[in-house]
Amino acid sequence: MFRKTRLYTPGPTPLLPAAQFAMASADIHHRTAEFRALYSKVLAQLKQFVGTENDVIVLSSSGTGAMEAAVSNLTSPGDRVLVLTAGKFGERWTSLAKAFGCQVDLVSAPYGQTFDTAQIRAALQPDTRAVFVQATETSTAVRHCIQSIAETLRAAAPDALLVVDAITGLGTTHFDVDAWGIDVLIGGSQKAVMIPPGLAYLSVSQRAWAAMETSKNPRYYFDLRKERKVAPKGESAYTPAVALIAGLGAALDYIAGQAGGDLVAGRKLLIENAESCAAMTRAGLTALGFTLFAPEAPAAAATAVAVPDGMDSGAVVKALKSRFGAVIANGQGEMQGKLFRIAHLGFFDYMDTIALLGALEFIARDTLGLPVEFGSAVAAAQRVFAARKPDESASAACLCGRANCARS
Amino acid sequence: MFRKTRLYTPGPTPLLPAAQFAMASADIHHRTAEFRALYSKVLAQLKQFVGTENDVIVLSSSGTGAMEAAVSNLTSPGDRVLVLTAGKFGERWTSLAKAFGCQVDLVSAPYGQTFDTAQIRAALQPDTRAVFVQATETSTAVRHCIQSIAETLRAAAPDALLVVDAITGLGTTHFDVDAWGIDVLIGGSQKAVMIPPGLAYLSVSQRAWAAMETSKNPRYYFDLRKERKVAPKGESAYTPAVALIAGLGAALDYIAGQAGGDLVAGRKLLIENAESCAAMTRAGLTALGFTLFAPEAPAAAATAVAVPDGMDSGAVVKALKSRFGAVIANGQGEMQGKLFRIAHLGFFDYMDTIALLGALEFIARDTLGLPVEFGSAVAAAQRVFAARKPDESASAACLCGRANCARS
Repeated sequence: MFRKTRLYTPGPTPLLPAAQFAMASADIHHRTAEFRALYSKVLAQLKQFVGTENDVIVLSSSGTGAMEAAVSNLTSPGDRVLVLTAGKFGERWTSLAKAFGCQVDLVSAPYGQTFDTAQIRAALQPDTRAVFVQATETSTAVRHCIQSIAETLRAAAPDALLVVDAITGLGTTHFDVDAWGIDVLIGGSQKAVMIPPGLAYLSVSQRAWAAMETSKNPRYYFDLRKERKVAPKGESAYTPAVALIAGLGAALDYIAGQAGGDLVAGRKLLIENAESCAAMTRAGLTALGFTLFAPEAPAAAATAVAVPDGMDSGAVVKALKSRFGAVIANGQGEMQGKLFRIAHLGFFDYMDTIALLGALEFIARDTLGLPVEFGSAVAAAQRVFAARKPDESASAACLCGRANCARS
Repeated sequence: MFRKTRLYTPGPTPLLPAAQFAMASADIHHRTAEFRALYSKVLAQLKQFVGTENDVIVLSSSGTGAMEAAVSNLTSPGDRVLVLTAGKFGERWTSLAKAFGCQVDLVSAPYGQTFDTAQIRAALQPDTRAVFVQATETSTAVRHCIQSIAETLRAAAPDALLVVDAITGLGTTHFDVDAWGIDVLIGGSQKAVMIPPGLAYLSVSQRAWAAMETSKNPRYYFDLRKERKVAPKGESAYTPAVALIAGLGAALDYIAGQAGGDLVAGRKLLIENAESCAAMTRAGLTALGFTLFAPEAPAAAATAVAVPDGMDSGAVVKALKSRFGAVIANGQGEMQGKLFRIAHLGFFDYMDTIALLGALEFIARDTLGLPVEFGSAVAAAQRVFAARKPDESASAACLCGRANCARS
């Protein structure tokens, strides 16, 4: 039978057709009124999508470029920073901070878990310049509670800057950037906004802009102040990725269009969509006998699933691709071979979710040799779908999804 | 949740990405060496795809244009023709033959059924000029046994021309055009070849070319002799649909690529793919309690499903679209409201089939109020998939799929 290629990876994610069409027709020079109008519109939309009154800066780079920009613009060699790490992307904060000469304090959580708020409080020092954390740790599919981390920070170290990598968090979890005092929040294009890799964006608070004036680390391409200076004219400091910007505009139009043109309400629907796909997937895989890797604080962005001891998650990834054409992600770093990851962020729907579970039933049976009753994972997901309340997430006390969150 | 638009209609069918890319880059003038090379290649590929040594002529029109070409090129006013009709497209042959002044004899089968060979034999007259039939009647999803019809014709009326509408039959059922003596076999672009509507093609036998010399019906745009004259130079008589021809070439490349570059073997895989999707779908819907509309001779191109008495199949079509984004077809003509149709021809795979069944379980439950056990249709389809033998179809005595076929 045919095997269509289908991405279920936590970035890149499936492309939105409307964005693809916009990209294909983006035959625009970047120093023209036409581009300036497009860029100004997209920058205004991004502020709504991020949910902030702060400036939002766009970079032509991967998400890591924006992470570097946060470090290089906000710190000086010798600065003390705190990194909260629970996976590969937490470790990337450590590497970046060290590359720029920072003195790094760490609060770690084991892979698959999130942080103990008391440990964060204890690790904060009077001279902590900035705290770096992920909203969702993509490598383990854990959601950290940014709201409780922000509150801890404000109480214990009010001068420290809070920098949040929300590359897979934006559009899959709720933030109140300004109320919580998030100084920098980072997003990327190949995630919930359903376009290819190549763009990153950062919201930057007034405190962060002020901090940049005193930070001594070298930066040129990623100097956020240069972008801030020209952005009000609808320009970027260097040649921007024009087609991706056109695609991003079309994707944000699409998200707004899901809620009658209201981008803030559309973002809420986008988050709920990911939550629904994630809840269906968790139920389906649990019904098949798999162990969820991050049961305490599962991200809606992706689901990480442990394979039984002695089995290789890489075999699942490989068999799914060769037999059905669907692409999921293996574990990363030390988790390689131990877990596989299924994305829900962006352009996924009920039928995508059912189709993947219907394929994974065969892989569980034939590749892993598990006892599988046909239709059982699908049925478990269908029961979740049938019981779903559209506004479920909005009514929860805390939105982080962690059972024992300090805020609940 | 998001609802992606997904076509499960028996034309247009889902587009092949490789064909879309070829169409998007088809910035070619049609009176150039570049186009002549493309067109010559596609004409040669079509002969392989149709499976004939006869000429294959391409028209920029819908399939109905090619049906008209068959009638207008092969008949004269007052000619006696036999139409075999069992649905809306059989009735179209009657309308066309009458529009061109033919005297029409009919062999009819009730909707959902196929023909009695003895009736065909009895209806043939010494002066029957041509016999018109569908390979698969798309409106009822029935497959007619062209092989047995051709044999009946050769024995009882060897001079009559055999014209087969294989618009949904090509790529979903086996033909041996030359051995069976099919004089004209018609295909269309928006079917198993996975590109948009706008092209039709006909294989034309030497007998049919000879017959055109004496037929007196008027034709100009659809004069097949004009196309035959210029085709060896890689040209078409009138402006061709260049992008569709580029898309068709890419689609035929893709089909060949499924079998290591062998288009004949690739066509066999394409047919088996449709058969697998159809068998899964039939099992799934039967498990849900639906009645198949054409159980005797089901086409692999599509499955027609009756809704219980007093229920409206239009409600199923509408609810599936509004709730899950998937598009299936209602019944046509007098079958409207009584059945719905799901396509399998072209670019469908296991995951498409599972996803649709997983959605139809909800529609059966919530729209039709049927008792549905979640996962039951999916599981029935999975059992078919698990038991599938790849070369099943090739080993059958007759390939028409009809239980009581005269040839079995």
